Amino acid sequence: MLQREKTADLIAKVGEKVRVSGWVQSIRNHGKVVFLDLRDSSGVLQCVGTVLEQKIGLEDVITIEGLVKPRPKNMINPEILTGTIELQIEKITILEKSAPLPFDMGTDELAVSLPVLLDYRSLTLRHPKIKAIFKVENQIINTFRRVMSGLGFEEFYAPTFVASATEGGSNVFPVKYFEHNAYMAQSPQLYKQIMLGVFERVFSVARAYRAEPSVTTRHLCEYISLDAEMGFIDSWKDILVVLEKLFFEIFLDLNKFCSPELALYNQATPQVAKTIPYLKMREAQQIIFESTGVDHRKEPDLDPEDEREICRWARETHKSDLVFITHYPTKKRAFYTMPDPENPEFSLSFDLLGRGLEWVSGSQRINNYNQLLQAIKDRGNKEKDFELYLMAFKYGIPPEGGFALGAERIAMQVLGLNNIREASLFPRDMERIDVSLSKLNPQTK
Amino acid sequence: MLQREKTADLIAKVGEKVRVSGWVQSIRNHGKVVFLDLRDSSGVLQCVGTVLEQKIGLEDVITIEGLVKPRPKNMINPEILTGTIELQIEKITILEKSAPLPFDMGTDELAVSLPVLLDYRSLTLRHPKIKAIFKVENQIINTFRRVMSGLGFEEFYAPTFVASATEGGSNVFPVKYFEHNAYMAQSPQLYKQIMLGVFERVFSVARAYRAEPSVTTRHLCEYISLDAEMGFIDSWKDILVVLEKLFFEIFLDLNKFCSPELALYNQATPQVAKTIPYLKMREAQQIIFESTGVDHRKEPDLDPEDEREICRWARETHKSDLVFITHYPTKKRAFYTMPDPENPEFSLSFDLLGRGLEWVSGSQRINNYNQLLQAIKDRGNKEKDFELYLMAFKYGIPPEGGFALGAERIAMQVLGLNNIREASLFPRDMERIDVSLSKLNPQTK
Repeated sequence: MLQREKTADLIAKVGEKVRVSGWVQSIRNHGKVVFLDLRDSSGVLQCVGTVLEQKIGLEDVITIEGLVKPRPKNMINPEILTGTIELQIEKITILEKSAPLPFDMGTDELAVSLPVLLDYRSLTLRHPKIKAIFKVENQIINTFRRVMSGLGFEEFYAPTFVASATEGGSNVFPVKYFEHNAYMAQSPQLYKQIMLGVFERVFSVARAYRAEPSVTTRHLCEYISLDAEMGFIDSWKDILVVLEKLFFEIFLDLNKFCSPELALYNQATPQVAKTIPYLKMREAQQIIFESTGVDHRKEPDLDPEDEREICRWARETHKSDLVFITHYPTKKRAFYTMPDPENPEFSLSFDLLGRGLEWVSGSQRINNYNQLLQAIKDRGNKEKDFELYLMAFKYGIPPEGGFALGAERIAMQVLGLNNIREASLFPRDMERIDVSLSKLNPQTK
Repeated sequence: MLQREKTADLIAKVGEKVRVSGWVQSIRNHGKVVFLDLRDSSGVLQCVGTVLEQKIGLEDVITIEGLVKPRPKNMINPEILTGTIELQIEKITILEKSAPLPFDMGTDELAVSLPVLLDYRSLTLRHPKIKAIFKVENQIINTFRRVMSGLGFEEFYAPTFVASATEGGSNVFPVKYFEHNAYMAQSPQLYKQIMLGVFERVFSVARAYRAEPSVTTRHLCEYISLDAEMGFIDSWKDILVVLEKLFFEIFLDLNKFCSPELALYNQATPQVAKTIPYLKMREAQQIIFESTGVDHRKEPDLDPEDEREICRWARETHKSDLVFITHYPTKKRAFYTMPDPENPEFSLSFDLLGRGLEWVSGSQRINNYNQLLQAIKDRGNKEKDFELYLMAFKYGIPPEGGFALGAERIAMQVLGLNNIREASLFPRDMERIDVSLSKLNPQTK
């Protein structure tokens, strides 16, 4: 038996007899000639036959043996990788039949609503434009991993069961843990600070869990958190430099490895200047006031419209789709955030905004044991719920800081998707775990 | 201010004035001369001073400025990377003080019991010999990722909340998911088969959750599962070939990048022949019977002593520390396991055993929709609990199979650890989530 070839490799095999396998993506019956598009992991190949002996349906899994031929000049398709060749079908073997499709999977756009897109997730993920989202997202994660490793960060795997709801009670999922109460970790934050005491610089690709009690277009109950933490910093600005490098490399890699996927979404990577501009939250509010008349100069945070406005400003003034906002009020940030020694009401914290939305959140952290213990108590938390975390600081943690970003959100923003669910393979929200929850668990509703 | 150098880089800077930062690993006061070992992420450096002006304690985080000097010949230490140099201390700055240590961290072996090792995890992870475990484990995971990517497997990120306890009810953790019941995924198995329909070959580094109701030395409630699944196989043996390649590369990389860590544990990587021997379970039982007289030839599985015995056999007969056992009884394996067409009582399944323990479990899978649906029903499962999973097969999945291994277990086996908890950064079991559960949640006990 011939060895199976990937369709993309056939460009170099004109004139050879080959065997390919994959899914039937489309069939066009022109009477005496039948065109069949075969999809495999490397792309799509046009196969040409006369009358097909068997009944072949869409998404059938088949093997075709045949002869690789150049396409007639007028049939060349520059849109696809194998557009200059076709396979003359000699023999088709059906490996598995598919049921009739519930909707047309052969169009460039998959014309279904979001609920249908998710109800049929096992099928819709196969559509080239849907699959492209996850090629892009994987590239973002892979580049994160490569850049962090290159900068001397060690990967670690944070646990997800935690004994206390340490980062805020209401948005936490409780787990029945044998005879005890446990919770799902809202982030690997506390563990990455512990691990910093071991490896100095650490990163993780971890699941984070948020019991978001509302359905929005930009929140998931379970998402991929890309986290990093670095010790021995001289200043909180050292963290911004790492993020500049990270996004420079992400955009470079996306252009290098994912340009077909970006093209499917008609997107270019965000524009960034040599350095990403940064300004304090109060400065941002002043700029917004001056340019729009909206006076949020006393507000403790930027609201979504403020974020969009300051992104417009960064684009116009600095030709940058990304902008850092720094020095958020201390009381608006997590307890471990380092207050600015020059003005402790504000903190050495930052968000990286991109295209009108928060992409990254980070800060320098409190690294002195007594100061951290006081910060925990000041927020009404219990010392005993932070035993292992505080222990790291008790035995010495250097000046440090870090950041976190959600992989799905960056992919959504890079591709211009409308809903973050599109960037999650199997999105979980308050109404859905694969299928509608009301359908699955009626007894507890 | 001088830029901070890593201690390992100072070998090339003899005669230069430098600044280093790290933790105080040991202090040896010889009256007029004080030796201080400074630990950073690159290693340990001997620093030499006269009387120290400040009070310096173990695990203090400090910065030292000084002159890099060659050590006197009789002081050279071939055991450490920087053993030919020392730093003449000119100035010490304390960044953070450490509390007095609860036990001696300066010995080659950390002489504490397992409960103490875990009670003080934030500290004990810093010990070079403990840290080494996670260098090795990271290398295993990184090599898995590299090899799988190189073989055309696409990484995917499986969800961990699932709506039904599909892989067996008793060992599942229930989650309160808003007003509904949900569970923690016992493995990414069903999702990797769905994703195979998208990418043909997929792998994942995922958390798996098992509510193990007993405390053993080789089970964790939360572990890192390395999973792979490959489509368009010609035979189940294709899967073994991938595993041979994987372990060949893992051992190669461990020798290349982790030989100091292996040396700390006095371990060589397992011995493997050019190919890993494989035999059917019934054949293994026959061999055990012939060599030991123990007759397990009618048993439906190998027990732990059988596994140790057949590993001894593989080592003696094939000079291999690894051995595949294949064709376990169909009813002893998961519902999705493909029965052997030649004898459906047995299945196209396998375990890879190493050094007396199961390392990997895998099989060819049922890929026909109707056969799979029947297998689900035959085990007493409900079709509606497998909606998205069955959908993948409804729309065509090629012949396929895959495998899974636990990262902690491989690290434990490679390093010869006694307890798998040692190979988990923050192990979770029925008695512990960081701290003893009885201590944290007395109200629910």
